[in-house]
Amino acid sequence: MLAEFDLIRRYFMSSQEASAASNGVTLGCGDDATLLAPSAGQQLAVSVDTSVVDVHFPREAPAFAVGHRALAVALSDLAAMGATSRWCLMALTFDQRQFADDEATHVWLEAYARGFHALSQQHATALVGGDVTSGALSIGVTVMGEVPVGEALTRCGAQAGDLIAVTGALGGGAGGLALWQQGERDLTHPLLRRYLLPEPRLAAGLALRGLATAALDISDGVLADLAHLREASQVGADITLDALPLAEGLESLLGTEGALKAALSGGDDYELLVTLNAADIAKAQQRLASLGLTLTVIGHCCETLGISASGQRDLSRYVSGYAGWQHFSGETP
Amino acid sequence: MLAEFDLIRRYFMSSQEASAASNGVTLGCGDDATLLAPSAGQQLAVSVDTSVVDVHFPREAPAFAVGHRALAVALSDLAAMGATSRWCLMALTFDQRQFADDEATHVWLEAYARGFHALSQQHATALVGGDVTSGALSIGVTVMGEVPVGEALTRCGAQAGDLIAVTGALGGGAGGLALWQQGERDLTHPLLRRYLLPEPRLAAGLALRGLATAALDISDGVLADLAHLREASQVGADITLDALPLAEGLESLLGTEGALKAALSGGDDYELLVTLNAADIAKAQQRLASLGLTLTVIGHCCETLGISASGQRDLSRYVSGYAGWQHFSGETP
Repeated sequence: MLAEFDLIRRYFMSSQEASAASNGVTLGCGDDATLLAPSAGQQLAVSVDTSVVDVHFPREAPAFAVGHRALAVALSDLAAMGATSRWCLMALTFDQRQFADDEATHVWLEAYARGFHALSQQHATALVGGDVTSGALSIGVTVMGEVPVGEALTRCGAQAGDLIAVTGALGGGAGGLALWQQGERDLTHPLLRRYLLPEPRLAAGLALRGLATAALDISDGVLADLAHLREASQVGADITLDALPLAEGLESLLGTEGALKAALSGGDDYELLVTLNAADIAKAQQRLASLGLTLTVIGHCCETLGISASGQRDLSRYVSGYAGWQHFSGETP
Repeated sequence: MLAEFDLIRRYFMSSQEASAASNGVTLGCGDDATLLAPSAGQQLAVSVDTSVVDVHFPREAPAFAVGHRALAVALSDLAAMGATSRWCLMALTFDQRQFADDEATHVWLEAYARGFHALSQQHATALVGGDVTSGALSIGVTVMGEVPVGEALTRCGAQAGDLIAVTGALGGGAGGLALWQQGERDLTHPLLRRYLLPEPRLAAGLALRGLATAALDISDGVLADLAHLREASQVGADITLDALPLAEGLESLLGTEGALKAALSGGDDYELLVTLNAADIAKAQQRLASLGLTLTVIGHCCETLGISASGQRDLSRYVSGYAGWQHFSGETP
């Protein structure tokens, strides 16, 4: 059995120490708290997310993916604010008795730390605090980013007439989960990657600063997340179901109906949902294209509160099972 | 069953919103992340602590105490840095199915939130982020404080000749746990309070800024925590067992031997362990006295690494069961 301090030092400190010094960290892990130097003229954006085994990821998920995913879902919140990620703290709870022996524990922890570190390095996010406790597997990640005063993307700036757009493709999270449940374990499968190794859209959030009037990340499906945006901005939304960008391979896996349902209410996509003035959409699409990302218009904001659908398809067909649905009745809030 | 967002709003947001505006919070809970305005010329001190049921607190602990304690142990790390606490984020994992019905859930959550809030308000610490997930009961708390550049108390400034001192009294955490295990449930019992409702020594940490050469909080018992300080500062320590300030009622509960063992290696005391130049001890004691706290000299730092004991008592008698002991052999490191 490894003691907490040894564990943190062995798996989580070494590769971070080098990057920490250049990232505003004046005192790294090991003291009671870590001292950070926030940049002048910036606001701090902070958020916390917990990933629990059997709730947010399967018990048999590869340790590398568990580490990656726990950080990714937290970073996704910074992306939605248009913030630059700088620091994170990680609270890992796990049960050493779950493993056959110390070697198995070591293998799991090493892969977990590798997944966490690879993503934190990709986004220049120094791990500045850690806690390891014994209990049911769960990971709490607090992320801290910076954004110039007044430039953060919030949920409350959307106005009637604004276009509604999403980055990348939707439904991949739900599709990947379905695949996993069917026994697929090949992490190179694009849908499985979307579910287990989501990519937080930090670069997109940064690129949309100054253009998006509102933004949030899609963790619960477009319908539920759009509802948060509608409520915060006090606007209605009209979406075109045929315009939803579906993840590659999703229709062949789930059929058209299933794919639309996955995109609307499946969750776990971690794309950004944004609103923009129509005059800015081309510029925004151009910026995202330079990042290798699409930005697809899926509807527009309107004055009448509530949600409606344009086009041939009836929205209500796709929302059974969507818990938020009872709050909507056609066009009413 | 309550949804996450409702739950956070219902139990954790209302009483915080008023205080948030005056505490550098420009955008409160409800967006993807919260925006904070750090003060100019200050370093941020950050730390994370997880409290797990059956590991850090008993399953039957009163909900008020669970909320208080989860925040207290995290704030204790800021106290040890001499930081002023400003913000916290809370990740609560709990299982609604554990409760008989929605009413029982409500009663627990309401008391939990009350315990958390009472302490956060006492220390002007705004709750700026929350996550509620389903799973085995556990609470992750990230705390953020501020300290003027260069003034933080760290573990590495102790020098040979410095006095070693502790705030308040020791062994109360272990004594309270023993009482709890004996069936005591009266939270007005001083020892039980020390275990379930520890008071983070933030005011003491602040008062010791500029005086203490090193500091940390006592979470694992004086011996284990002093070992961290010795290692970080590369000094040895000589302590006088008879000088240890024992919590009131501890000796009558555990006997003299048991009380000393509780103080040395029981843990959960959350007092501060500091080193000071002998010339500063009177001033430090004066400052703490004005806070209603004692500061007791328990030994001094020496050049020879390792730990030794002065006085009539033999240190080795009290350290069986102390996991760190095998690293010590008398006077050697």
